[in-house]
Amino acid sequence: MDATHRLVILGGGFGGLYAAKALKNAPVQVTLLDRRNFHLFQPLLYQVATGALSPGEIASPLRSVLRRQKNTQVLLGEATDLDAERRRLILDDGQAVEYDSLIVATGSADSYFGHDDWRRNAPGLKSIEEATEIRGRILFAFEAAEIEHDPGKRREWLTFVIVGAGPTGVELAGALAEIAHDTLRHDFRSIHPQDARIFLLEGGPRILPTYPEDLSDKAKASLIKLKVTPQTGVLVTGIDDGGVTGKTPAGNQRISARTVIWAAGVRPSHFAEVLEHRAGAPRDKRGQVIVNGDCSLPGHPEIFVIGDLAYVEQDGKPLPGVAPVAMQQGEYAAKLIRARLRGQTLPPFRYRDKGSLAVIGRASAVAQIGPLHLSGLLAWLTWLFVHLMYLVEFSNRVMVFIQWGFLYLTFNRGARLITGPDPSGHPAESVGELRSPSLKR
Amino acid sequence: MDATHRLVILGGGFGGLYAAKALKNAPVQVTLLDRRNFHLFQPLLYQVATGALSPGEIASPLRSVLRRQKNTQVLLGEATDLDAERRRLILDDGQAVEYDSLIVATGSADSYFGHDDWRRNAPGLKSIEEATEIRGRILFAFEAAEIEHDPGKRREWLTFVIVGAGPTGVELAGALAEIAHDTLRHDFRSIHPQDARIFLLEGGPRILPTYPEDLSDKAKASLIKLKVTPQTGVLVTGIDDGGVTGKTPAGNQRISARTVIWAAGVRPSHFAEVLEHRAGAPRDKRGQVIVNGDCSLPGHPEIFVIGDLAYVEQDGKPLPGVAPVAMQQGEYAAKLIRARLRGQTLPPFRYRDKGSLAVIGRASAVAQIGPLHLSGLLAWLTWLFVHLMYLVEFSNRVMVFIQWGFLYLTFNRGARLITGPDPSGHPAESVGELRSPSLKR
Repeated sequence: MDATHRLVILGGGFGGLYAAKALKNAPVQVTLLDRRNFHLFQPLLYQVATGALSPGEIASPLRSVLRRQKNTQVLLGEATDLDAERRRLILDDGQAVEYDSLIVATGSADSYFGHDDWRRNAPGLKSIEEATEIRGRILFAFEAAEIEHDPGKRREWLTFVIVGAGPTGVELAGALAEIAHDTLRHDFRSIHPQDARIFLLEGGPRILPTYPEDLSDKAKASLIKLKVTPQTGVLVTGIDDGGVTGKTPAGNQRISARTVIWAAGVRPSHFAEVLEHRAGAPRDKRGQVIVNGDCSLPGHPEIFVIGDLAYVEQDGKPLPGVAPVAMQQGEYAAKLIRARLRGQTLPPFRYRDKGSLAVIGRASAVAQIGPLHLSGLLAWLTWLFVHLMYLVEFSNRVMVFIQWGFLYLTFNRGARLITGPDPSGHPAESVGELRSPSLKR
Repeated sequence: MDATHRLVILGGGFGGLYAAKALKNAPVQVTLLDRRNFHLFQPLLYQVATGALSPGEIASPLRSVLRRQKNTQVLLGEATDLDAERRRLILDDGQAVEYDSLIVATGSADSYFGHDDWRRNAPGLKSIEEATEIRGRILFAFEAAEIEHDPGKRREWLTFVIVGAGPTGVELAGALAEIAHDTLRHDFRSIHPQDARIFLLEGGPRILPTYPEDLSDKAKASLIKLKVTPQTGVLVTGIDDGGVTGKTPAGNQRISARTVIWAAGVRPSHFAEVLEHRAGAPRDKRGQVIVNGDCSLPGHPEIFVIGDLAYVEQDGKPLPGVAPVAMQQGEYAAKLIRARLRGQTLPPFRYRDKGSLAVIGRASAVAQIGPLHLSGLLAWLTWLFVHLMYLVEFSNRVMVFIQWGFLYLTFNRGARLITGPDPSGHPAESVGELRSPSLKR
């Protein structure tokens, strides 16, 4: 009987992957379980959605990343249930995986604030599939406008609405403006892509609400320069296939648009419910799991919850749902497990905030690094450097760097493909019939 | 009223795109109609299916390729009918597009020889979607084997069957062998990817049946060295979710396998039927359109049919359905249209065969260039050079070159993603609900 400590990590995002990597050569048998076979560099997903990068360039096979780590096994599968008493995870095929310690890092999903019917007309940006879906919708809108003779309908195809002006919404709006004004500039004969109208709707009083106010103002000015229309104080009340309805301080408004993208909110992944029902996990009003100071679950010191799924307050404020928090928590949990195996413990987790960065366009970004507030080219270069450094670890950095070089010099976005099961209403012959039941385990 | 000659080109593959490019600056108003927004470099599709390249690296937006050609308009749409008398194409949305000349270059689709039910268990390799589907199936098979405890079922997951040993089948088999033996070598803990069995089934007496016999033999030896099992004289009689049934010279056989790929045959695209019914086009027994010596339709000198859709004999033999034939026919049709506008004509089309190339693996290929038969490294270098030269025109060459450099040096295939609507039985949350009726025109 092997007495090695068995750790199961649920989720191969930033939290789970950094936990696994921090346990290299530890006397721990690590199993990383994910329903996808790759780690996704989510902060660059908007670049896939806007045709600058290919999915393969921001995703790395988990096995590849962890291949040299002999104490670690990667499993493709989805955990659907938990037996906290017997320390077993139940997978969707009924199989049980036993653990001595468990790290849950299943992240978050889009939240439509109770209006899940909005999803079909306003996809979010959480997965590769959604990113290529959004890419297809944006590109198809220009194609549809090109063949549309009716000026009103053409205008609807050339109107884009992004709901939510956090970093993702701002980055999408900026990239979309560059597509319209630069990338597609010479590509059409009947329309002028520059006529595209891009609305960025925000419920709060300013865009980038988590950033310092001066940077919000700078970002707003940059977006307006790119011909984006930011609107703050807009409460979206409806999204249908003809556009977006909302309440503004000036009254109700309706924007007729054929392309709407959702960047307004996230909710914890459904495993939070499993933790509540099976391990008595307390949850806050947004549904996140409230954890102890050492990221463990109250009453279950062997279960850690990290990343977007966890609710942690620091200095009286909740930690934001960003990659650095998840990475640091993953590394902390790994370190704590190592310490416990030596009969020791660690002081509570503390997040070291290295700053926030949001890119707006070519050579334009805003950044907060401690007391430092940057904008423009300097912020953009910082953004570039930070992201390339992170990508270094995932073997894709050279390709991304070259792609960005091309993009910067030529405005050309090479990955402008409309793909998918039915991206344009013009499916490839018979592609739709391909799904095989043999893939079901 | 504009008296410029209106040419409509149906299809943006090799034939259609080369016709359009050959009409740069001609006194012709060109409309290129395709149901996809990109030109696909189909000869490299197998590299997407095997995770070496990303879709964006072998596809170029048609608008991008033709953006500087002011007399050319690209339209996204599908032609469903033809009014040959009034010279109008009917699109799927009911719109009519008038032409003075028409070039039909809609290519071919997979043919299952009347067994269309085989498709769901044995996808072909004609589109980006099918390539990423096959990629997902190959990668998922290894994942499923890793978590399978039953040795018999594990063996089924590790068995791959490729039906058809033309260039596509041979190239797929070679790449799949490299995935199993090199790329995934260190990636798994419970299985040895090297245990994978790869069968390459061919109905004829030898693999690469259109190549000279000595090259078939060399390719066979190379494949066996890569641990592929080529079987010739096998008539497939059934494909289901458990494997492939066939008749061999030695009797019936059954190969239990969870992953089957179809590379055995193509049929003309369905527009051949439209041409038969609406313009009286004669068709051969495989359904291709039999054209005049100048690639025009009998009785309709203004309609040209080129590429895989056309049946042309030269020196008593039918021309093969390969990219160079389509490209030369496209350029010929363009030249003939230019000549006619000057009141001239041209001698009949003649295909100049520059040779055939099939790659088997790293530094291994076979090539026929006129009387020259090459194999091994020299053939592979020729293949590399020829493909990079072709890609030059489509702006992706640098990326592909770098990817190949990495692949050659490290065996690492960066684009090993399982994606799609339900690639693994583990869809991303709610992705399946995304399709929007608003994309229907």
